Amino acid sequence: MKSYIDLNCDMGESYGAYTIGGDDGVVPYITSANIACGFHASDPTVMDRTVRLCKENGVRIGAHPGFPDLVGFGRRFMDIAPEDLVNDVIYQVGALKGFLDRYALPLQHVKLHGALYNYLVTKEELLMKVARVLRDSFGNPIFLTLATGNTDKLRERCRQEGIRLALEAFPDRAYTDDGELLSRKLPGAVLKDHEEIARRAVEMVVKKGLESVTGRWIGMEIHTLCLHGDNRESIEAAANINRLLRENQIQMAPLSKFLT
Amino acid sequence: MKSYIDLNCDMGESYGAYTIGGDDGVVPYITSANIACGFHASDPTVMDRTVRLCKENGVRIGAHPGFPDLVGFGRRFMDIAPEDLVNDVIYQVGALKGFLDRYALPLQHVKLHGALYNYLVTKEELLMKVARVLRDSFGNPIFLTLATGNTDKLRERCRQEGIRLALEAFPDRAYTDDGELLSRKLPGAVLKDHEEIARRAVEMVVKKGLESVTGRWIGMEIHTLCLHGDNRESIEAAANINRLLRENQIQMAPLSKFLT
Amino acid sequence: MKSYIDLNCDMGESYGAYTIGGDDGVVPYITSANIACGFHASDPTVMDRTVRLCKENGVRIGAHPGFPDLVGFGRRFMDIAPEDLVNDVIYQVGALKGFLDRYALPLQHVKLHGALYNYLVTKEELLMKVARVLRDSFGNPIFLTLATGNTDKLRERCRQEGIRLALEAFPDRAYTDDGELLSRKLPGAVLKDHEEIARRAVEMVVKKGLESVTGRWIGMEIHTLCLHGDNRESIEAAANINRLLRENQIQMAPLSKFLT
Amino acid sequence: MKSYIDLNCDMGESYGAYTIGGDDGVVPYITSANIACGFHASDPTVMDRTVRLCKENGVRIGAHPGFPDLVGFGRRFMDIAPEDLVNDVIYQVGALKGFLDRYALPLQHVKLHGALYNYLVTKEELLMKVARVLRDSFGNPIFLTLATGNTDKLRERCRQEGIRLALEAFPDRAYTDDGELLSRKLPGAVLKDHEEIARRAVEMVVKKGLESVTGRWIGMEIHTLCLHGDNRESIEAAANINRLLRENQIQMAPLSKFLT
Repeated sequence: MKSYIDLNCDMGESYGAYTIGGDDGVVPYITSANIACGFHASDPTVMDRTVRLCKENGVRIGAHPGFPDLVGFGRRFMDIAPEDLVNDVIYQVGALKGFLDRYALPLQHVKLHGALYNYLVTKEELLMKVARVLRDSFGNPIFLTLATGNTDKLRERCRQEGIRLALEAFPDRAYTDDGELLSRKLPGAVLKDHEEIARRAVEMVVKKGLESVTGRWIGMEIHTLCLHGDNRESIEAAANINRLLRENQIQMAPLSKFLT
Repeated sequence: MKSYIDLNCDMGESYGAYTIGGDDGVVPYITSANIACGFHASDPTVMDRTVRLCKENGVRIGAHPGFPDLVGFGRRFMDIAPEDLVNDVIYQVGALKGFLDRYALPLQHVKLHGALYNYLVTKEELLMKVARVLRDSFGNPIFLTLATGNTDKLRERCRQEGIRLALEAFPDRAYTDDGELLSRKLPGAVLKDHEEIARRAVEMVVKKGLESVTGRWIGMEIHTLCLHGDNRESIEAAANINRLLRENQIQMAPLSKFLT
Repeated sequence: MKSYIDLNCDMGESYGAYTIGGDDGVVPYITSANIACGFHASDPTVMDRTVRLCKENGVRIGAHPGFPDLVGFGRRFMDIAPEDLVNDVIYQVGALKGFLDRYALPLQHVKLHGALYNYLVTKEELLMKVARVLRDSFGNPIFLTLATGNTDKLRERCRQEGIRLALEAFPDRAYTDDGELLSRKLPGAVLKDHEEIARRAVEMVVKKGLESVTGRWIGMEIHTLCLHGDNRESIEAAANINRLLRENQIQMAPLSKFLT
Repeated sequence: MKSYIDLNCDMGESYGAYTIGGDDGVVPYITSANIACGFHASDPTVMDRTVRLCKENGVRIGAHPGFPDLVGFGRRFMDIAPEDLVNDVIYQVGALKGFLDRYALPLQHVKLHGALYNYLVTKEELLMKVARVLRDSFGNPIFLTLATGNTDKLRERCRQEGIRLALEAFPDRAYTDDGELLSRKLPGAVLKDHEEIARRAVEMVVKKGLESVTGRWIGMEIHTLCLHGDNRESIEAAANINRLLRENQIQMAPLSKFLT
């Protein structure tokens, strides 16, 4: 069977007079965009502009809700009650959907941001609760979360509940022997060599897994690779990955094209 | 032909630990609610709770977007560029629609709030621009704005562009001879006598107009009356209006039941 | 030696159109006020008004900084880096000091709010860091924190570093055998009987300690009692405490009058 | 008598993960900095860092308060009631003063930002009210506002009330025949030629005035020139001005050195 892979990138994180990220630069190399929704980054006009940019480039769109912490860019954990947290997510996804409706575009997926993403990776019940509400409220968008060495249970639960799950890996990040992301606080957590990163991206797709920081092989179901457009260097890395995947005849496509 | 009237009220204006308004008290007397969307008031959990309250009481729901000015409660004019203003409205309406989608409820209407409402009453081109974007983005919700002595041109424009327009009057407010609201800064601008307010409400519906502050009759097309739930007294006024309309065999119904 | 006690209360927590608390009602019964600084509650006009209210009533003023989380009222933990947390405190205390300078009033003390207060009770190094910066930046205001059964080390450190420490107890809260506040999630954590609360307040001052929830006696150095002005009932409780302290010839005075 | 001139620049406008401006680049060329205070830009950690940067470079510091409109960068007019506006200014100046107190630095001046600056230039009574409150609350900092062709009355009022006034001109802006800034909406409003800008700066100081867009000479009392550090180009312009002033033996000094 043919291998498909999605390439996703966070986009639309500018705010008012403040610009972050090279959205124009990275958009040619990706198939799906995670668009910030105004709580940790972005504002209504940035959202509108980013949705149009994705439309023009044929990139599928997902919502990228975060903690309500603009000054912290959603990177700081906030101890929000589950009910409030679910409502924060609905609010943000709904707001983005307003702009999708404006241009008659579908909501392909939802990917949580930053500290909210990390928090729910460790709280499966709460993650399922959020995923369920999204399924029921927004026409069953794909729920995108972290691929690890042990997602069997999560995948089975989602399958049973009719939640479409997409698992993502990070070609530029080192992994522990448990198939989890090595903490950024540790040396070597973030890879810098573009050739190495691109080689690793191809390996993730072709061999369905990756080598941990100690050299151990971790098998993983992976549907999408996370790229970055923060600066010129990360855009080059994205271009590199895209090129090497092409050279290896790997089919790049947005999640909705191959996840059913 | 039978007379229909809608009774609308602003709701869901609480915020976090802060409570405003007696939503539970006024909800039995109205047919449509304007729910705040988080920019001038409200938060995601308040929005969720208010949508459920309306659902339980059979009250139809509209979005109530305002200026991005929580500390000013959306009552202070902000000189926002038209494009940004349109995007601010889409964002807020989309966010509310997320909660409507959660409970499979339709968006009946949109009513702007406070200084934004007042501003667009004086800027017909911008009002039409906003109304057009709402029509195209959100399945043509009814656009609710101020009934004055002179809405012929606005009504005709909306008719031609397929925008469903609802005009509202304020039974507790005095009007100028031009059929505009008498400024709150002038004495007598806000009526206090509940019997007088209710009598005036009936007159507005039955006689299709109202008497100005100088005693002049102003004919008006009126689809909805604006009630208040700010405190015990305004809730009593709402109850009074509701009762007197019933006693006069006037049919109260949400806008979507009689505006096509 | 004569016993002195300060009575403190959180004040100035209203925000824009939103009112919280009965500041006018509780102000006659207290000697020190903790004024919110705009991050978890309050706005500049509320701060100005609250400072004037305290001035008119001869109540001494402290800053009451919290996490930057208005919608959560500063009650939700946020994982803020120490440097940012210190700066958040300086910003808020400085802002309040602007209003004190307007009326030529001194900053008597600083009391952290909500989740920030609770967090630093458990992080002595960070608490000392904050207290040190306040000492150096704002003319050595008193630092107010929780009295527990074990504050010997903290008091000694503060003494050595020239930080003036005030310890507060809660007459309406149950305590564990370790002299810590019983979690609000547990039954009986908050006392309701006004007579019991007032009797306990006197005992705290006269006997320098309190009985834990199991009946064990916990000796405590206590400089100030925390009262509440949230509603009519809590104001009555405050009045009761004030009255019973008077009847027992206990001298009530602001912290700066007896802490040197 | 020797000519003195101050060179001021807006600084510290970054926010959380968002960076704006080349503060490090422009700081060598200026004598006074206007530091944003968190309402239209900046956050507590940016403020702390910017104060330290100024201290290290011997640059005097002023507060730069703006409208409470982060997404609009304080560039959009807000119709705020005078009392609230005054309190917004006190809050922001107080917050900055917290960081000045931390490093034992004086508050040299206050310069309003963006739409607030422009608004008060047209509202002399409100400007005087703000200036008076600043004089009384913060040890009489210098109040910096726009030099025009007609500031006689304003200067006289300030003199009588003991308000220290500094008037600023913009070497890179065209002026009308009334000595007011030519609107940015008109062509030629912003000069681009660095040599021309620097030449004009020298002329402003030496000849105490400037040529309007029609070639008319406008005499002006000017104490400070506004430079920019937004990007590489504006920093070059600042360096140019600084160099040409030196070459013309004009003494550059912070306002507090020559305004008494």
